[in-house]
Amino acid sequence: MNELCIQENIIKEIVGGITAPKGFSATGEHIGLKKKKKDLAIIISDLPATASGVFTKNLVKAAPVLWNQQIVNNKVRGIVVNSGNANACTGELGFKHTEIMAQTLAECINASKEEIIVSSTGVIGVHLPIEKIVIGIKTVVSSLETTREAAKRAAEGIITTDTYTKEIAIEVKIDEKPVRIAGMAKGSGMIHPNMATMLSFVTTDANISKEMLDKTLKDSVEDTYNMISVDGDTSTNDMVIVLANGMAQNTPITKENENYCRFKSALDYVNKYLAKQIVNDGEGVTKVLEVIIKGASTKEDARKIAKSIICSNLVKTAFFGEDANWGRILCAAGYSGASFNPEKTSISFSSLGGEILLFTNGEPIKFDEDKALQILKERKIQILISLQDGNEGATAWGCDLSYEYVKINGEYRT
Amino acid sequence: MNELCIQENIIKEIVGGITAPKGFSATGEHIGLKKKKKDLAIIISDLPATASGVFTKNLVKAAPVLWNQQIVNNKVRGIVVNSGNANACTGELGFKHTEIMAQTLAECINASKEEIIVSSTGVIGVHLPIEKIVIGIKTVVSSLETTREAAKRAAEGIITTDTYTKEIAIEVKIDEKPVRIAGMAKGSGMIHPNMATMLSFVTTDANISKEMLDKTLKDSVEDTYNMISVDGDTSTNDMVIVLANGMAQNTPITKENENYCRFKSALDYVNKYLAKQIVNDGEGVTKVLEVIIKGASTKEDARKIAKSIICSNLVKTAFFGEDANWGRILCAAGYSGASFNPEKTSISFSSLGGEILLFTNGEPIKFDEDKALQILKERKIQILISLQDGNEGATAWGCDLSYEYVKINGEYRT
Repeated sequence: MNELCIQENIIKEIVGGITAPKGFSATGEHIGLKKKKKDLAIIISDLPATASGVFTKNLVKAAPVLWNQQIVNNKVRGIVVNSGNANACTGELGFKHTEIMAQTLAECINASKEEIIVSSTGVIGVHLPIEKIVIGIKTVVSSLETTREAAKRAAEGIITTDTYTKEIAIEVKIDEKPVRIAGMAKGSGMIHPNMATMLSFVTTDANISKEMLDKTLKDSVEDTYNMISVDGDTSTNDMVIVLANGMAQNTPITKENENYCRFKSALDYVNKYLAKQIVNDGEGVTKVLEVIIKGASTKEDARKIAKSIICSNLVKTAFFGEDANWGRILCAAGYSGASFNPEKTSISFSSLGGEILLFTNGEPIKFDEDKALQILKERKIQILISLQDGNEGATAWGCDLSYEYVKINGEYRT
Repeated sequence: MNELCIQENIIKEIVGGITAPKGFSATGEHIGLKKKKKDLAIIISDLPATASGVFTKNLVKAAPVLWNQQIVNNKVRGIVVNSGNANACTGELGFKHTEIMAQTLAECINASKEEIIVSSTGVIGVHLPIEKIVIGIKTVVSSLETTREAAKRAAEGIITTDTYTKEIAIEVKIDEKPVRIAGMAKGSGMIHPNMATMLSFVTTDANISKEMLDKTLKDSVEDTYNMISVDGDTSTNDMVIVLANGMAQNTPITKENENYCRFKSALDYVNKYLAKQIVNDGEGVTKVLEVIIKGASTKEDARKIAKSIICSNLVKTAFFGEDANWGRILCAAGYSGASFNPEKTSISFSSLGGEILLFTNGEPIKFDEDKALQILKERKIQILISLQDGNEGATAWGCDLSYEYVKINGEYRT
């Protein structure tokens, strides 16, 4: 990221969700897949939008993932998402169901099925009740609106065990034109993205080429969704989709110039916000952890160490227990596969409760347990690791492992 | 492994622990590192023994690991182990402490410090109370015995959160000579061995060359300790040590002949037993899982899939909840990094409660939930996965993730 670009780029958060950019309408309703909560969401772009997506690297890909991998190469008119059933591990019939969902929405909005992104989330391995969904889509399209309310309904329609909706809308000037980017996402278990993530849908009225949209999304995902973990499990359904319909009428972004740079930092802002919200609402979370690695010899090493730490069950349970067990952190760094020198490593914790150094230059420090407890009592805690091995860094976001996580996942399906 | 060799090899379990092979004495006592429980163990070989070890691949290695990596190249007279404090992440002083432990035991038994293996387990990042340990070793050597009782005391001296000791002794004929192999191990958290594992000490009176002992241990570890996981965390202190003192007087095993083969299958038997016991006594375990992969195209792929499944928090919590959530199993196989075809994959569960097929050839099967529950109610459950992709297989052992695991690890240090 160009530094000048970051400084000059004024990103303004605005009230709203995915309908904030021009030309997008949305809705979300209950159609009977879940007991009571909303379980279907639709997003429509008035104009065919340039699309980009990153998808799970899990070898076992849900039917909608396989569908969308093709569709993002087309201009896209709409997205239909059901929650409550993931349509994963459902064989040929599952893929047929995805096609039917696309076809149904396409007919309603006078588009072709190849212009429709499909997404499903929920339990794995159960065929969709497709008749119910077809009727549902046909009914629900009547409530499509461009209002803030409608965006909220859509955000509600995609969540599963999430306890709240994740939405953001921002505005940034490109060519003196106000360009908007908005997003919604869902967590909150099976969260350990690999090249993609849970479900995240981003809309923008920016005018940007397919090539540049692909590049900016791919780069953005590396430092946002790919740096979070709730439980180390990479889902079969992960995807991030961006639709850009060009209605902001900025000069088309077709190369890596200053405008690209502005757009990229704005997209990063949206993606980072949503990624952090997913962790904040992770299953059973009582502590939100931000692991900051500094002084790594390579960016890749910094990322590996950060992710290894936030994925360690022993680190996670220690924070749940408000225990300053920095040894488990160093241990997790040690098995990350990254290269570093433990003899030059320092570890400290920081939160609203203060900051404390626990380990420096390979030696433990006698620390004040009461002070440590003050820091660990807070919900948001930073783990700062200095490697003195170079100039690269990375940040990862994770959470603790609580009784509640075990409860939620021991009882989820049944 | 030569099949003929397995068939002909009659391995007889005998009553006893690590003092069962000729020429080994042991002891274990409380010296004040823990509140009440035994926290020091010593094993002595009357004759200098050929030694072999495999050690943690964690970049952060505890001081005793660094010490032992050198010592296993010598003939070894003794092993001293303390529990309650891991002497890991303790810098230069930590290494000095390890040396002092070796020196102290060496003086007591008229050996040199370079003939002593040292091991520590417990909390990370706290310096050893070395004066207490020096006095402890000097006192405890007086209780060294070759009895079954003494072996049991030693096994007690090395455990931490384990709820019981893990011991085995077997006898096998080599050259018509009865050769004994015995072992003791400790778990039960931070268990995710990588080329080595937790602490496991194996004694044998077999006569075997250093080269052959190294080879057989390295190979054995791959299919035993390296195929278990309790919580996905690879410890800083993992080690498996074998001492072979030759007192069984068999013809020296110096090449991969039939005798090597017999010894190898006997050593595998001991290591597999101890590895499975570690899982059985994993922190908070209510279910013991055996994942059996068949029909993989490579052994490496089979191992990756098996380990990915037993490491998945979502799989583990599903079993804790007695939920036949096979989708999470396929998902974990999918992100293992191994290559296989989900369309040809089948998954079934088996236990004393019966057997049930859940997924076959890429399609879910409508199954009887009551029957599944009968199977999942048992403590020991097999997860059988057929890939129809080749002839290779692997087995991994793991456990569920329970409230108790979270409790133990949220409260461990404090």
